[in-house]
Amino acid sequence: MSKVFVIAQGGGPTAVINQTVAGAALAARERHPGSKVLGARHGVRGIAGADFVDLSALSEADLMRFANTPNSGLGSTRDKPDEAYCGRILDGLQKLAADAFIYIGGNDTSGTLAILDRASAGKIHFIHAPKTIDNDLAENDHTPGFISAALFVANAFLSVDLDFRAMRGVYIGIVMGRHAGFLTASAATWRRDDTDGPHLIYVPEVPFTETRLVEDIRATVERYGRCVVAMSEGVQTADHKPLAESLIPAHLHERDAHGNLQLSGGDLGLALQEAIKDDLPGVRARVDTFGYLPRGFLATISETDRAEAFAIGGFAVEQSEAGSGSVAQQYAEGKTVLKMVPLDAVANKTKTMPADFLTPAGNHLTETGLAYFRRLLPPRPDVWTPFV
Amino acid sequence: MSKVFVIAQGGGPTAVINQTVAGAALAARERHPGSKVLGARHGVRGIAGADFVDLSALSEADLMRFANTPNSGLGSTRDKPDEAYCGRILDGLQKLAADAFIYIGGNDTSGTLAILDRASAGKIHFIHAPKTIDNDLAENDHTPGFISAALFVANAFLSVDLDFRAMRGVYIGIVMGRHAGFLTASAATWRRDDTDGPHLIYVPEVPFTETRLVEDIRATVERYGRCVVAMSEGVQTADHKPLAESLIPAHLHERDAHGNLQLSGGDLGLALQEAIKDDLPGVRARVDTFGYLPRGFLATISETDRAEAFAIGGFAVEQSEAGSGSVAQQYAEGKTVLKMVPLDAVANKTKTMPADFLTPAGNHLTETGLAYFRRLLPPRPDVWTPFV
Repeated sequence: MSKVFVIAQGGGPTAVINQTVAGAALAARERHPGSKVLGARHGVRGIAGADFVDLSALSEADLMRFANTPNSGLGSTRDKPDEAYCGRILDGLQKLAADAFIYIGGNDTSGTLAILDRASAGKIHFIHAPKTIDNDLAENDHTPGFISAALFVANAFLSVDLDFRAMRGVYIGIVMGRHAGFLTASAATWRRDDTDGPHLIYVPEVPFTETRLVEDIRATVERYGRCVVAMSEGVQTADHKPLAESLIPAHLHERDAHGNLQLSGGDLGLALQEAIKDDLPGVRARVDTFGYLPRGFLATISETDRAEAFAIGGFAVEQSEAGSGSVAQQYAEGKTVLKMVPLDAVANKTKTMPADFLTPAGNHLTETGLAYFRRLLPPRPDVWTPFV
Repeated sequence: MSKVFVIAQGGGPTAVINQTVAGAALAARERHPGSKVLGARHGVRGIAGADFVDLSALSEADLMRFANTPNSGLGSTRDKPDEAYCGRILDGLQKLAADAFIYIGGNDTSGTLAILDRASAGKIHFIHAPKTIDNDLAENDHTPGFISAALFVANAFLSVDLDFRAMRGVYIGIVMGRHAGFLTASAATWRRDDTDGPHLIYVPEVPFTETRLVEDIRATVERYGRCVVAMSEGVQTADHKPLAESLIPAHLHERDAHGNLQLSGGDLGLALQEAIKDDLPGVRARVDTFGYLPRGFLATISETDRAEAFAIGGFAVEQSEAGSGSVAQQYAEGKTVLKMVPLDAVANKTKTMPADFLTPAGNHLTETGLAYFRRLLPPRPDVWTPFV
């Protein structure tokens, strides 16, 4: 029986978010010949404003070209709909006679779908398809988009560590991550021993002080002649405020519709650079902000990530026949498996790194932590250890 | 006849600088069986301090693993030797009974070799092998290391432009480059038309004002709903001072042994972010500093760049039989060719972008400029143009 599927993308783009759209469009075509698959432009905005792309009209080859293109090709939004907005979305879906709405996004997205699901009383099925480079969704072992972003970060830190062996100094790479340190910690995936960088990892899960940073760096430089640091832009002080928040002048604070402070690695970077200049005089110190680079970088899209994100699209279509829910990518008996969980199990929750991923000092990964990243990413490239 | 070759790496690392070492070591072995090839650790420091790696002892397989590893595997230095230092270098070379010293580096490196060549009176031959991601060496069409760094930058801007189509705003990526804007301008290599980012390019060759930037961005946002900017960290004000110099507090100024101000993209980034917040209120603006990422990134090493850097090593060994000089990578009759030029032709000179590479407004590339980058880099990846 032909059906009407609506699909949309919410929140920050990833390198493989279009794979899920293509996977869903192709599964809908196969399972329900003659189905309509409409992509809403800019997430739920496109539904409220009746702004759609007819994905059913695309050839399989075009859908696969779309799939292999990073970043949200339907456009995205950070709108967090209130009740009235949800009413407009429901109206939009009802006008289309939609059978299912598949919304690809993070925990905010799942929250929006939970509201819609309650309001629609079962007439339309709402499926949350996971994605986020932050890897912070409850119920998920890892999320689509994370592995590719992590692959960028791992490549970057291996490369920069080689660079800083050649010319000694301190390097701080600031990586996106507000609450969860997974992406920052992936910097250590290809580390072999304590001599390899990154030598220090600072994540939002562990309270941070500038004093501690300076002492850690000083000790590392004394031991190895250099120090490579991976730091989350969301590192927090003991009072659970982002370090950036206390360091950045108040007039630069900017919050999104969800009340999240817009952090900029650049601001944090400058503050850190000043601290190092003051406290470690004569040490060559450089801070780079990776910012948007990891999340859609064309040259580091993981094949695993592509395949998993594509499969989630098909699974979402299949599961939409039974009811609403959130697709969760879990890990069981040595492999990644998909299952459905309630929308509320994911909505507005944040998964942070398990405590046993981090050393007691909180500035590095344990073997347990390392094993997790090594399971997901490809093996370390075969590079030669410099002669210096 | 067996010979003694000394080889070293100076200045900033590149993704393919070890290719030149391996190319030289293998050519020395082939042309002069039984030759000694010594790698000096940390450039001329290793010669003055008798700190060498015996590259002759490595297998061809190991040399090729070394070749394929980015960043200076022998270590590097920014030392600019004075007369006394040059005396110690010459002593070191004479103790080894060196026939030739091959020094891989930029224009400063060529300058050091010119001094050594005059002092040694022809007993040792001094060969400068070019490298720099800045692409700013006289006599060279392009320099080893540039294409790989440019490939990172082109990938980054294509990816980020897709990202900023999905969620509108202003993006500024700050790219290394003190005097020459080649690396920054490579951001436009895969641009198809005016709708594609980067929409604006600011390079050190064109005097820069914050006012101009704000007006350019405002006009671009009005037209395309977003604005992606590629900016050199060395952009200069009309009085030929780096913009960063006037924006960064004086106590953060740091100069290297060559008197160059150490620029940090982070400092510039924060200043720019403030300017946009003030002058374009309500516009979402993000600034990332690419910093060290492009120059040794493992996943974007160009095959052309690898092969060219390797060939230069062999050519340097071959030419060292005849005398001193600088290897220049030139372009003639549709192909890249190697020739020898005097050390002084390259020493302490800086090549900037030809005037006809830039539009009259100075904020974008002409077709001539684009053609140059397209000749060097691989074709644009086959990405789908987003539906928004």
